[in-house]
Amino acid sequence: MDPPLDLAFAALADATRRGIIDRLGRGHASITSLADTFQMTLTGMKKHIQVLERAGLVVTQKVGRVRTCGLGKRGLEAEAEWIETHRKLFEARFEALDDIISEIEQERSNDSAS
Amino acid sequence: MDPPLDLAFAALADATRRGIIDRLGRGHASITSLADTFQMTLTGMKKHIQVLERAGLVVTQKVGRVRTCGLGKRGLEAEAEWIETHRKLFEARFEALDDIISEIEQERSNDSAS
Repeated sequence: MDPPLDLAFAALADATRRGIIDRLGRGHASITSLADTFQMTLTGMKKHIQVLERAGLVVTQKVGRVRTCGLGKRGLEAEAEWIETHRKLFEARFEALDDIISEIEQERSNDSAS
Repeated sequence: MDPPLDLAFAALADATRRGIIDRLGRGHASITSLADTFQMTLTGMKKHIQVLERAGLVVTQKVGRVRTCGLGKRGLEAEAEWIETHRKLFEARFEALDDIISEIEQERSNDSAS
């Protein structure tokens, strides 16, 4: 189990939330301005920010009536490492499923022939 | 919108599904043997495999009564690219949120002093 990876990948599984990370990569923004940018209600934006915050990808701080959002200090190191390791697994798989299936079918036809 | 990224990140947001990718990276396996390995019901494993299949990360083929699973041909290229680009954004953010907050507070105290 790795709850941080679970939370981060779930947070990234939404185009708006990925867009928010894009936007915050160019500088901090208030929730109100993010709601404007992504043309959604303040309530909808707050929910997205909460998901990103729980995953540690975004931090927020309230100064007076304005809640300002920025990229979290956590970064995407663990996710990058997981993806990179497994990207190589996909590359290294030396046979397509079709080949295995052909093998099984070949074995079967040998069995029934014997 | 990028539905393939949505589906892939959602598929990766679960420790068992990440474990299945690990396991299939070492070779093909039947759904029954995967259910054994991960100590879950056949129905539970079928659901996980469906999520991975929809994301293109796993392919399955039924030969006789056995459904064999393997890594999909899609790979994790798009996810690796997204994570890598944005990992750099996190690294490049040249100021902590605290700094911005201090700045805002500074501006405010200047305003109220003027």
